[in-house]
Amino acid sequence: MEQLFSKLNELYGEIVEIRRHLHENPELSFEEVETPKYIAAYHQALGHEVRTEVGGRGVVAVLKGGRPGKTVALRADFDALPIQEENEVPYKSKVPGVMHACGHDGHTASLLGLAKALNSIKDELQGNVVFIHQHAEEVTPGGAIAMIEDGCLEGVDVIYGTHLMSTMPVGDIVYGVGPFMAAADSFEITVQGKGGHGAMPHLSKDAVVIASQLVVNLQQVVSRKTNPLSPAVVSVGSFEAKNAFNVIADKAVLHGTVRTFNEDVRDMIEGEIDNVAKGTCLISGASYSYTYSKGYPALVNHKEDTDFVVEIAKGVPGVEKIVEGEPQMGGEDFSYYLQHVKGTFFFTGAEIPNRETTYPHHHPKFDIDERALLIAAKTLGKAAVTYLANNSLKENGVTVG
Amino acid sequence: MEQLFSKLNELYGEIVEIRRHLHENPELSFEEVETPKYIAAYHQALGHEVRTEVGGRGVVAVLKGGRPGKTVALRADFDALPIQEENEVPYKSKVPGVMHACGHDGHTASLLGLAKALNSIKDELQGNVVFIHQHAEEVTPGGAIAMIEDGCLEGVDVIYGTHLMSTMPVGDIVYGVGPFMAAADSFEITVQGKGGHGAMPHLSKDAVVIASQLVVNLQQVVSRKTNPLSPAVVSVGSFEAKNAFNVIADKAVLHGTVRTFNEDVRDMIEGEIDNVAKGTCLISGASYSYTYSKGYPALVNHKEDTDFVVEIAKGVPGVEKIVEGEPQMGGEDFSYYLQHVKGTFFFTGAEIPNRETTYPHHHPKFDIDERALLIAAKTLGKAAVTYLANNSLKENGVTVG
Amino acid sequence: MEQLFSKLNELYGEIVEIRRHLHENPELSFEEVETPKYIAAYHQALGHEVRTEVGGRGVVAVLKGGRPGKTVALRADFDALPIQEENEVPYKSKVPGVMHACGHDGHTASLLGLAKALNSIKDELQGNVVFIHQHAEEVTPGGAIAMIEDGCLEGVDVIYGTHLMSTMPVGDIVYGVGPFMAAADSFEITVQGKGGHGAMPHLSKDAVVIASQLVVNLQQVVSRKTNPLSPAVVSVGSFEAKNAFNVIADKAVLHGTVRTFNEDVRDMIEGEIDNVAKGTCLISGASYSYTYSKGYPALVNHKEDTDFVVEIAKGVPGVEKIVEGEPQMGGEDFSYYLQHVKGTFFFTGAEIPNRETTYPHHHPKFDIDERALLIAAKTLGKAAVTYLANNSLKENGVTVG
Amino acid sequence: MEQLFSKLNELYGEIVEIRRHLHENPELSFEEVETPKYIAAYHQALGHEVRTEVGGRGVVAVLKGGRPGKTVALRADFDALPIQEENEVPYKSKVPGVMHACGHDGHTASLLGLAKALNSIKDELQGNVVFIHQHAEEVTPGGAIAMIEDGCLEGVDVIYGTHLMSTMPVGDIVYGVGPFMAAADSFEITVQGKGGHGAMPHLSKDAVVIASQLVVNLQQVVSRKTNPLSPAVVSVGSFEAKNAFNVIADKAVLHGTVRTFNEDVRDMIEGEIDNVAKGTCLISGASYSYTYSKGYPALVNHKEDTDFVVEIAKGVPGVEKIVEGEPQMGGEDFSYYLQHVKGTFFFTGAEIPNRETTYPHHHPKFDIDERALLIAAKTLGKAAVTYLANNSLKENGVTVG
Repeated sequence: MEQLFSKLNELYGEIVEIRRHLHENPELSFEEVETPKYIAAYHQALGHEVRTEVGGRGVVAVLKGGRPGKTVALRADFDALPIQEENEVPYKSKVPGVMHACGHDGHTASLLGLAKALNSIKDELQGNVVFIHQHAEEVTPGGAIAMIEDGCLEGVDVIYGTHLMSTMPVGDIVYGVGPFMAAADSFEITVQGKGGHGAMPHLSKDAVVIASQLVVNLQQVVSRKTNPLSPAVVSVGSFEAKNAFNVIADKAVLHGTVRTFNEDVRDMIEGEIDNVAKGTCLISGASYSYTYSKGYPALVNHKEDTDFVVEIAKGVPGVEKIVEGEPQMGGEDFSYYLQHVKGTFFFTGAEIPNRETTYPHHHPKFDIDERALLIAAKTLGKAAVTYLANNSLKENGVTVG
Repeated sequence: MEQLFSKLNELYGEIVEIRRHLHENPELSFEEVETPKYIAAYHQALGHEVRTEVGGRGVVAVLKGGRPGKTVALRADFDALPIQEENEVPYKSKVPGVMHACGHDGHTASLLGLAKALNSIKDELQGNVVFIHQHAEEVTPGGAIAMIEDGCLEGVDVIYGTHLMSTMPVGDIVYGVGPFMAAADSFEITVQGKGGHGAMPHLSKDAVVIASQLVVNLQQVVSRKTNPLSPAVVSVGSFEAKNAFNVIADKAVLHGTVRTFNEDVRDMIEGEIDNVAKGTCLISGASYSYTYSKGYPALVNHKEDTDFVVEIAKGVPGVEKIVEGEPQMGGEDFSYYLQHVKGTFFFTGAEIPNRETTYPHHHPKFDIDERALLIAAKTLGKAAVTYLANNSLKENGVTVG
Repeated sequence: MEQLFSKLNELYGEIVEIRRHLHENPELSFEEVETPKYIAAYHQALGHEVRTEVGGRGVVAVLKGGRPGKTVALRADFDALPIQEENEVPYKSKVPGVMHACGHDGHTASLLGLAKALNSIKDELQGNVVFIHQHAEEVTPGGAIAMIEDGCLEGVDVIYGTHLMSTMPVGDIVYGVGPFMAAADSFEITVQGKGGHGAMPHLSKDAVVIASQLVVNLQQVVSRKTNPLSPAVVSVGSFEAKNAFNVIADKAVLHGTVRTFNEDVRDMIEGEIDNVAKGTCLISGASYSYTYSKGYPALVNHKEDTDFVVEIAKGVPGVEKIVEGEPQMGGEDFSYYLQHVKGTFFFTGAEIPNRETTYPHHHPKFDIDERALLIAAKTLGKAAVTYLANNSLKENGVTVG
Repeated sequence: MEQLFSKLNELYGEIVEIRRHLHENPELSFEEVETPKYIAAYHQALGHEVRTEVGGRGVVAVLKGGRPGKTVALRADFDALPIQEENEVPYKSKVPGVMHACGHDGHTASLLGLAKALNSIKDELQGNVVFIHQHAEEVTPGGAIAMIEDGCLEGVDVIYGTHLMSTMPVGDIVYGVGPFMAAADSFEITVQGKGGHGAMPHLSKDAVVIASQLVVNLQQVVSRKTNPLSPAVVSVGSFEAKNAFNVIADKAVLHGTVRTFNEDVRDMIEGEIDNVAKGTCLISGASYSYTYSKGYPALVNHKEDTDFVVEIAKGVPGVEKIVEGEPQMGGEDFSYYLQHVKGTFFFTGAEIPNRETTYPHHHPKFDIDERALLIAAKTLGKAAVTYLANNSLKENGVTVG
């Protein structure tokens, strides 16, 4: 492993350069053109087998090890966000209104550097490494599902991925077994009552009252219908019924979000919201329309692989703390890969230590400590090499202590 | 009229005696035996045509006037209540747990005295007087509807009735045109959820929550569904779901009352309560049963006849004030007579002036000032005689100023 | 009276002309300039004492009768509405976006014609007539209150007024004793919660949920807190909390209206809405601001004067039906006059008989049958003349049969 | 360990006998007399140091090992329930209305048998074993807290305990790290409104409506106020407001339960229920009283000790499956011990395999497969012996592989 780590140390300057290049040239989800070209060229230069336009705009590169064995996939996403950068840094985004405000530039740079490092020890590799460079993680339906359909996981035995976190200290590796990131869905309910004069409620069907009852009744979806051991959230973020004060509203529009970690609970909630809307509207003889849009499913880490990565992380230079994290309510389409092959997804702390304020992801002043790129590369790299070694040896009847 | 009034003055002692006799010997609704016998005997002694067991236990007596003309009906009810009297008076009820706590003893005594007085001037009467002695006013379906079906209103042109009121000063006559006493209905809703352990709501259908939502949602029946100009009340008096603290209730039972003055509003509310129950239960997949029991309809006084009685009351000795009263939310089955013939129903003040407390109707200490019996008799008597005179003369082409 | 009626018949062409002139030249509330000038000039030409700028833009003219007596006031309002007329008529409004869509042009024309007719019989008039031409009826605080403060009712014994109604048949006079038009108030509640991410409700105070509970809880103000015999409406017409679907709203704004006929109920409701807001926000630790704006008070017709006008209307040519109307939920600042002097306000039917659709007041296609102007003038005129005659004679110890 | 296991096998008959003796002679919580005597006598016969009336009715016995070392506590509870047994078995309860329907008889028998077995190998024991026989687990405040205050944990380094589960297969050991059994609290809210006649809501404060709103509003304590990752339940099991249908209720009484796994959430909920009650009553000007009674705190297993017992269980004869269980919403006062010393509490499957129906705990037909007693004894015994051995060796600088 020493060889891999020292190669990565050597490459650190290059990794930072790549990251800054990408940061200056961000591309929105489903609009990525130059970024995949750049990635493909990098791998081609290393002599890796490269497939482009995978599932649309994704890039898949394969490094074949010198010895036979299993196949590990490592994934990095590369899309940016429609945010105007407010950092005053030399590598500030050159594209107005577009910014790498979620660290995907770092993911990509880290993975490219790791690809070069692994390439340098490819003769000893007891199997293959697949580099999955994914487009469009920020916008549903995301790139993962299309890349999987386009075969990016073929022959893959295990997959690892990480997310740089501007809100967690550099040196932290944060893991979780089982449900680790929530399914993030949205819904819209339009209540259609019957408008009228505010002084004559009996001639109308008051959409403001009906939608208010609906919001109140929705509270029971979590409080009464959901297994208390299954975390779930139903929030109505928006209630639109702007009218003159002296009318009865004919219509009210509700928009909300649902977060869950369990597919059954998710489906149950989709159905229960409908029941609440149906019953509440029936009370007043109103009608309604209801749309439930599924975002990414919950990301569920496999136990064995998570335990493995926890062990791996222990020896990695730069890793100071390995923390079991609480599940996160946000979504991530890495979840799709984990529905097909085993693996795990973890967080790599990337907080800038002495910054006056720590800005969260998706903030115009979001930034990361670039040392985290090295830690991420080393952890993923060690995991890949060790996995291949362990499984190759096992097949030959040998166990590693 | 002087003759009638002075005859009634003469009879005052007898009227009081009758009232006290009845007060000592009260009989419950639909269980009256001695009271109708007593009434029938009294009329028979006067030579009136008497029909008993009218509509069950009612008594109808007819006084034919000496001259041809119209027919006026006067009605008094005679049933008592299942209340233990707490007054310490010489004429205290002799029947344990049964009491004339609503003044029907007074109504009857007053009408019998009036019958004797009218009988004494029968030769001058320009038409007939029908005395309707009604059983069972206190308990739906009441005696009125059965007596009407049994013909008590046949040939009747107009009907007058009054209620002695312990809460209104002696000397007051209180009238109202149009809707004067509310329809008084009751309903019962049983919510059938699914019981369970209090710690596992998702495996149950929480009848306490569902029934609570139902009560909350019922508020909109009046606030949103009812014409604001049509008085209406929907009250849930009883909510039963007594269980251990740590369970989820499987069942909750609601009992309530509805008061209205308008048949359309009444029917609308009967339907809307069902809509609220249906919709609210649908939200949680619970079932329910719903029973709506109509009590007496709203009592609607005819304008012309009410105006007439107001005029009549002006000259009556003892009447000090003639007051337009607000509609009353309570029920009275005199309403049925007014659906068939024109007429009016008014209140005769009967408050005992110097009593420390005024006890309302249906109270164990309810009592009346007996002078009110004379006022009631004179007012009804003057109305009957004048009506007959007016209409007889009119038919003969003469008008009374 | 024959003389008055025939003079009015003569003036009918002129009345229609005035109305059409005003219709073509409408002026908004509190912006009236030419209309009061026109009115003042008309009265001055008749030799009436005229006061302008009364309470701002009102005009008061006085006709002194030839004989001593009481003083009757007649009122007509003259402001228009911010509505673009859609009628294709020769007298269509010439002012873009402004229209006499409520009949005030007719009120004014009718009263001016009546002024000229009364002037022609002034020698016989047993008292005086005050013509109150009021600006700004459509917009609170309205012109009435300022004109009263400026003395327009000084010396006035009784006041009469009418509203032309496009929704009631020509020939109908619609009256009501007591509360006849509702007090029309408005309120605004801003719920201030604490915003946050839709996935983390526990870190926020959800303004959408709180405001929804508030709307639901407001239903009990009418259903539980209001005397069922006192008509009242509380309607929330507008609920504004437009946000992204995946946030928790920090704020929600409610606008609504309250209609009542009784000052105590009105004050009670103003307070109870505050209680509901206070309690509901307390549940969640949110804050709120609440503004209650009183519009016109309930218009309460005096019984004696209403009965008088009903009698008056009986002989008026063109009047076909005199109808007791239900109270109206809308507001009218004639109510202020009736708080100071006795009098009555009634409706004069003005529906155009063969129009395909009847358009309500405030509609761009609102129009009236001009024959109603004559009926209104005759009714008000007869009332004024008779009132003066009756009261003069009474003072001289003579009674009119 | 072979010696311990074979001694326990030998004692199996005796263990079953003890269990059946206790089963026939159940004693209610805080009323235990014969059971603690029986337990004390058994330990005294083995020569153990015995302390009785510990914390009231508890018994603590100490077995001192032949070699110095740490001290392990093992705990069994011994109280029964107020349930009439419906099983027809030879060892059926002889006490009417009292029954060991939760398996505490088995816990005690198992621990006494283990005490004898450990006693037989005491010379090799590298430390001491404390046998905590606890009274009153079924009824708060329970026996644990009093026994701890009375010193039962003095000198104890670690504690283990298990619960036989009639609903889990024999052979299963079910464990959990961290929060494993919920805190189980109760609360009572009395809403004091103002009674009245059902037809006159405005003169009253409707306790049924207020309490219904309260129940509806309580839903948001879980749905909006609780971190979605912290399981919590708030259930109102009982709603009492039984009245005549035609009144307005003056009072309503709610009883409910709260389940949580986290002390902060528990305290937050206690406060939020008060906020909901306060705000909801304020809306209607009602008053309320609120009592929150804390039951047992959440049982939180220590990670290291749970991991240790999982390892221990692997070799135990009879153990077929070691399962990570979901947290349980029920309460257990073993939680108090774990607040003072480290340790773990696990479930031992005890389902009777071929029974037509599996009856849950607290059911009149509850019963257990007695083979589970042996498995429980072996698991606890192996844990105790191994713990002592490991820690003794460690202190001597030696590690066990």
